[in-house]
Amino acid sequence: MQIAIVLFDRFTALDAVGPYEILSRLPGSETVFVAERTGPVRNDTGTLALTADRTLAEVPSPGIVVVPGGPGQSAQMENGDLLDWLRAADATSAWTASVCTGSLLLAAAGLLRGRRATSHWLALDALGRLGAEPTGERVVFDGKYVTAAGVSSGIDMGLTLLGRVAGDERAQAVQLATEYDPQPPYDAGSPHKAPAHLVEKLRARSRFILT
Amino acid sequence: MQIAIVLFDRFTALDAVGPYEILSRLPGSETVFVAERTGPVRNDTGTLALTADRTLAEVPSPGIVVVPGGPGQSAQMENGDLLDWLRAADATSAWTASVCTGSLLLAAAGLLRGRRATSHWLALDALGRLGAEPTGERVVFDGKYVTAAGVSSGIDMGLTLLGRVAGDERAQAVQLATEYDPQPPYDAGSPHKAPAHLVEKLRARSRFILT
Repeated sequence: MQIAIVLFDRFTALDAVGPYEILSRLPGSETVFVAERTGPVRNDTGTLALTADRTLAEVPSPGIVVVPGGPGQSAQMENGDLLDWLRAADATSAWTASVCTGSLLLAAAGLLRGRRATSHWLALDALGRLGAEPTGERVVFDGKYVTAAGVSSGIDMGLTLLGRVAGDERAQAVQLATEYDPQPPYDAGSPHKAPAHLVEKLRARSRFILT
Repeated sequence: MQIAIVLFDRFTALDAVGPYEILSRLPGSETVFVAERTGPVRNDTGTLALTADRTLAEVPSPGIVVVPGGPGQSAQMENGDLLDWLRAADATSAWTASVCTGSLLLAAAGLLRGRRATSHWLALDALGRLGAEPTGERVVFDGKYVTAAGVSSGIDMGLTLLGRVAGDERAQAVQLATEYDPQPPYDAGSPHKAPAHLVEKLRARSRFILT
């Protein structure tokens, strides 16, 4: 099973590395970071670069496709080559997955039309405008399409998907190996739980990016 | 505030990128990945490379030092240059932090002697043999020393440390922005919760690495 994680300029690092750390432990799999060009790809802050080891063209039919999000996603919405690759890879994939605003790219490629899906909480409206049926859930399966909410949710998505592919016991072993027993010091990780003024502050700031 | 995240051959990616994603959002900070040489540094599976943008020598006195773990940590225990850098950086740091078996490197550098600290659950005994006082906790503060348990715990560590440095409100805003509202599909993330046979399986496999 080949697992392709797509990189593009100004992606969000944890969107990609969260599911990577989980899914790369799938027995018999090969995980590969792909981008339009090989070499370092810079994240949203510019202070982190992950290497793309293969071009999109070199990985035409992965078993699992994972698309991260990040501020760079909006530019990629206009990138016909990437959207073409997503459509072609999806034609043969067993699973097509996204984290955060990566689902907007899947939707822009026409892959989520009429499907239940999720995204970063600030991008759920945009996801709906692209033809998907946004839910407020953290990890959403609709057939072979697996979408996750914001940034850190890719870890939950990875574990859930790993369980489907390799069985609960394997997924539990990976959860134990990565000691994923979360204990956040606050309970502010969703707009339903965070202080209202913080929700409004982030919403106001995001208007520039997501409308 | 300069935040240096140390890379070495065969580090574990999420150990580094979890706290990176949180701490790099500290206002007025500059986060930099450092290693003995600049350029791509490969992780434990060899399928991921993060770029070190600066050499250790170029970043002599960061405000925050973060040391990830991973299978490559054991080779680094013998790396005098890295241990010297850790001691020198620690002499002026505001916070010296680790994730997973990164704490074994801090301990090998002599920085955790007699201090309460933690590590990956499989490495707690080794941490004790290096002179620290291992606890079973997920994130441990002892003065300016902040250690986290296995792999994914670096996110909790990052948020807790961010709260100490920048205040609870800022940390909560980052938790909301990264939608860190964990919902693991299983409850197997610690040796106290996972099925006993999985704990034993991982323990048996780790004997080669950690004794």
